[in-house]
Amino acid sequence: MTRIECHQLAPRVGELAANQHLALAAIRSSASAGVDVIVLPELVTSGYVFSSAAEAAQLAVGRDDPMFTSWAEAAGDSLVIAGFAERAGDGLLYNSAVALDGTGIRAVYRKIHLWDSEKLVFTPGGDAPPILDTRHGRIGILICYDLEFPELTRAVALAGADLIAAPTNWPLTERPAGERAAEVLNCMVTARVNHLAIACCDRTGTERGQRWTAGTTIIDQDGWPVATADDAGVAGAELDLLRSRDKTLTPLCDAFGDRRPELYARIFPLQH
Amino acid sequence: MTRIECHQLAPRVGELAANQHLALAAIRSSASAGVDVIVLPELVTSGYVFSSAAEAAQLAVGRDDPMFTSWAEAAGDSLVIAGFAERAGDGLLYNSAVALDGTGIRAVYRKIHLWDSEKLVFTPGGDAPPILDTRHGRIGILICYDLEFPELTRAVALAGADLIAAPTNWPLTERPAGERAAEVLNCMVTARVNHLAIACCDRTGTERGQRWTAGTTIIDQDGWPVATADDAGVAGAELDLLRSRDKTLTPLCDAFGDRRPELYARIFPLQH
Repeated sequence: MTRIECHQLAPRVGELAANQHLALAAIRSSASAGVDVIVLPELVTSGYVFSSAAEAAQLAVGRDDPMFTSWAEAAGDSLVIAGFAERAGDGLLYNSAVALDGTGIRAVYRKIHLWDSEKLVFTPGGDAPPILDTRHGRIGILICYDLEFPELTRAVALAGADLIAAPTNWPLTERPAGERAAEVLNCMVTARVNHLAIACCDRTGTERGQRWTAGTTIIDQDGWPVATADDAGVAGAELDLLRSRDKTLTPLCDAFGDRRPELYARIFPLQH
Repeated sequence: MTRIECHQLAPRVGELAANQHLALAAIRSSASAGVDVIVLPELVTSGYVFSSAAEAAQLAVGRDDPMFTSWAEAAGDSLVIAGFAERAGDGLLYNSAVALDGTGIRAVYRKIHLWDSEKLVFTPGGDAPPILDTRHGRIGILICYDLEFPELTRAVALAGADLIAAPTNWPLTERPAGERAAEVLNCMVTARVNHLAIACCDRTGTERGQRWTAGTTIIDQDGWPVATADDAGVAGAELDLLRSRDKTLTPLCDAFGDRRPELYARIFPLQH
């Protein structure tokens, strides 16, 4: 069984040092409790609603930033996935997520699908999402709006991910009374059709007038939520990630085996 | 605006003539009320839980069956999408859906993804789902388990469908208290990420011990249900199907324009 915790934090835009410490405290808390996989929100170090690209640049850090060293020390045996504003060597900015443990940075993923005004600040990623083979299972990483592209989530599932860990920053939108956020429903369905687990870690609070959805949810391979954030903002669950490797639906059906990729390519040649 | 009605019927397996009449009565009722698009369940003429392939063969009809003539006469200006067991000229059986109006059969779709013991009876379809350009909008047709393959639903959306009309036969499965059926959630998310409408017409009742989900739902382009079956088993809604053609999410975001197909093909070359 893999213990997963998401920390639905409320970083404050512009307060880099304070946010780094907020994240560090969350990592330390979960790691010391023996949690295996710790997920923090998108852009947890910088905040999200930038007043300008210049402000974003000031809040971005490189992969050699000492922040990651302190996070890695705190992580120990745990795997941490956390969003941050990345400044690359060439000065470009990326909306990135780091995966790290006590050995240091394991991977950095740069968000492929940028949402709205992120496009004015960040460069879209051009590399595949990492799928880390860890002792906790195979962990794929996506960020927020990436989840809305079934091409990508399916590809990550087919590439073998047992769990998608997804830092998010979902702006609150109107929805019918009694409904879950559409973004959470999307994660539930993505988990079910791909028979894998998803841990999406969202933001809470309000930032420069932008309210957040606070939609943090851990979802099992059948697509049902097993945990949302408690009063302390923590969603925690134990999941058997190995269940993700058996795509059997019935003795005659298999979620992946029943795909017909050659047919898709033939009947919709421009799309496959 | 397009008026859509789904008839959540309870055909009885083996009673071909009675089921044909049940369907005819539903078509007549909606068509005479001026409904534009009428959707009936999967395998509405034959029933679903066959005792043998031989029984299925006895309940299958060819495209020249007089049933379709009577349905077309009743349809008039309406477009009808209904599931039936199809016997092809070569004797093979297909789990098919017909689309017809007063001019006769417009298209027949053969289900591509067969569920469970359907595989013991039917041959899987090998042609693209039709996307009919009608005065009511562009109507794509899928059947039941097809909806669980995001490759296919995305392809139908990219090919221009405004509405997916889907005859279904969802076996009732356990779900957490208070949750919608997972199959309905899947349709909601499929509608939202592709910004199109979906009308899924399910079965009700029990057949040879198999209970049905009765999940009939008409879903708008934002992914929210606008109608489920009433006490008479009819789900009816008016939708502006032209809304499906504008995939704009924000001034800077577009559900289709933000896709990165070249990148998907490069980073997951075996899957795209």
